[in-house]
Amino acid sequence: MKKIYLDYASTTPIDKEVLKKAEPYLSSKFGNPSSLHSFGQEALFAIDNARKRVAKFLNSKEREVVFTPSATISNNLAIMGVLSGKSGAHAITSKIEHKAVIEPLSSSGAEVTKVGANRDGIIRVEDIRKAIREETALISIMYVNSEIGTIQKIREIGEMIEEVNKERKNKIIFHTDAVQAVNYLSCDVKELKVDLLTLSGHKIYGPKGVGALFVREGVALSPSIFGASQEKGLSPGTENIFAIAGLGFAIEEIERSDNREIKRLREKLINGVLSSVSGSKLNGSREERILNNANFSFEGVEGESLLIALDMEGIAASTGSACASSSLSPSSVLLAIGLSHEEAHSSLRVTLGRFTKEEEIDYFLEKLPPIVAKLRKIAGR
Amino acid sequence: MKKIYLDYASTTPIDKEVLKKAEPYLSSKFGNPSSLHSFGQEALFAIDNARKRVAKFLNSKEREVVFTPSATISNNLAIMGVLSGKSGAHAITSKIEHKAVIEPLSSSGAEVTKVGANRDGIIRVEDIRKAIREETALISIMYVNSEIGTIQKIREIGEMIEEVNKERKNKIIFHTDAVQAVNYLSCDVKELKVDLLTLSGHKIYGPKGVGALFVREGVALSPSIFGASQEKGLSPGTENIFAIAGLGFAIEEIERSDNREIKRLREKLINGVLSSVSGSKLNGSREERILNNANFSFEGVEGESLLIALDMEGIAASTGSACASSSLSPSSVLLAIGLSHEEAHSSLRVTLGRFTKEEEIDYFLEKLPPIVAKLRKIAGR
Repeated sequence: MKKIYLDYASTTPIDKEVLKKAEPYLSSKFGNPSSLHSFGQEALFAIDNARKRVAKFLNSKEREVVFTPSATISNNLAIMGVLSGKSGAHAITSKIEHKAVIEPLSSSGAEVTKVGANRDGIIRVEDIRKAIREETALISIMYVNSEIGTIQKIREIGEMIEEVNKERKNKIIFHTDAVQAVNYLSCDVKELKVDLLTLSGHKIYGPKGVGALFVREGVALSPSIFGASQEKGLSPGTENIFAIAGLGFAIEEIERSDNREIKRLREKLINGVLSSVSGSKLNGSREERILNNANFSFEGVEGESLLIALDMEGIAASTGSACASSSLSPSSVLLAIGLSHEEAHSSLRVTLGRFTKEEEIDYFLEKLPPIVAKLRKIAGR
Repeated sequence: MKKIYLDYASTTPIDKEVLKKAEPYLSSKFGNPSSLHSFGQEALFAIDNARKRVAKFLNSKEREVVFTPSATISNNLAIMGVLSGKSGAHAITSKIEHKAVIEPLSSSGAEVTKVGANRDGIIRVEDIRKAIREETALISIMYVNSEIGTIQKIREIGEMIEEVNKERKNKIIFHTDAVQAVNYLSCDVKELKVDLLTLSGHKIYGPKGVGALFVREGVALSPSIFGASQEKGLSPGTENIFAIAGLGFAIEEIERSDNREIKRLREKLINGVLSSVSGSKLNGSREERILNNANFSFEGVEGESLLIALDMEGIAASTGSACASSSLSPSSVLLAIGLSHEEAHSSLRVTLGRFTKEEEIDYFLEKLPPIVAKLRKIAGR
């Protein structure tokens, strides 16, 4: 059976070039970077080089890049790092964030305001501005939504916060979870005017087990994990050199990649689905949308059943973010942008990537309509 | 130049068999274990299998094994997980623990009693018993010391705590960091009577970027990292499947490995050093010592200079734990067992492993005496 992967937002396969370059750090170059001898120094050198690559991509200083074991841990370091120990602090986020932002915020002890998004899934800068209070210590808004792919106005939000901060003694820190943006959008931290930015290895054709956090110089973070002094004590524990090196190589590869073909195939996919399946609609903005994402609702179809029926034809897609897929409740993101429970339950996320071929999209477009028709028939619609 | 690695306690090279078995999870089997489709389920299956392997090794239930990104994070989960939010709690540890235990304890808010060790580096069970108070919530004692290799009486401590707990309503939780023990000692959690046990992938010829924590059923831990529900919410973030699978394969490999040769070579090393270098002595117990460790002090020699001189001959050793190697202060472990500052400063840790060959020990024994003599001459001794 054909196996077609259309779930690139969940995780990406590692790029063969990246694996080839990083592989020595799995075998011959295995030293502990904290060791003073040549094995250790060789490993340390790999981490330094990865840090250079990430800093170049972010247009930051090397010392502003902290490696962590995952984007979740980067988000925790950013959020808990700013808020922990600050009693009475206030934070602002949106109703369409990922759990890796929502949960640390909920556990931080801070009061949290969640601004809404419009029907298109776009957060208004003005809504964030209005939510700011004297006690606001942190604003965290994800760059690209992992479910509906909408692109938030991070630069405008950054500029607004910069303006507001001019009048304040206690500066507001601005964090963005950029894991879904890195492949396709500029993450120049000077342009975006963010203080903290999260990225992930396994979303950009690098290894799993590694994330990074950009920490603007002068922003003081308290660690949540304690141990030895790796990553200036912000991410203690022996470094996963292979994964860190791999993240560096993966981020370098991004600049070389041509994304126009992904966009063309995604357009073909959206147009094909909307024209061939009645009662289908696209969730989220059509324009302000990351180029590899499509998210549909199919009237009268249960998303999970659709997912399983597609899987039986060898097609891997998703109902929402992978991290929420074990939950049976409908996507909180889709509900927040105004879908009904039924519409949210009937959603399908299809995300393309570097290795997606036209024949895969054709195969998907061939298989989808009869599956939807069959599921509707079973449901008696 | 020959490259001789004698720093296995710092990190181990990955076993070729382990790498071969785990490698598919880097390339073709790349799914996100939270995804419902076949790519995801294949990854989830790998994690389940790794959990079975670890549980078998520990003689625990599968659901008592939590995978984390590192032993440091396992220790944090154990220590902060028991102590956080418990105001007025008391914890007991020793003066010879690793930073990955000391630092989370210091940051936990609990009052901490550090019991001493004798000149041999052994902690007396009676000293721990005496330190127990009504408010004692946690006792954390490492199984094998990473610097001097001394083996602590974990089983006896476990039995003592079990006895004490019979009379108590608020049971004391017993944690051991076993990262240096796993290769050579039984880690049967029923025999050891531990509630929490930490292990690490990269100390047992598995990948970096993975640890595990045994959590006895019924022991409730609060997470320090928040996000989606991976590992029952105790270690959120997309799982590093390759590393988790690798840890499983590595732990299986341990049972097959013959350690008598390592011990023979270590004995040859100790005898060779003590007989050929005047003013040399072995730190820590000669008998109650893990079979791959040797730790010496050389009168009138600065340990770091010795390390660098050995490195120039292609020999990788260590002055203490790798995680403390960037610090210039003498080993707190060696000071705690009664060495003077000067003795502690003149220490060298040599640790052997699965791939150590006799000719490497011979080479070390050939190179060491003239290097020590030269360093003493430079220092004018």
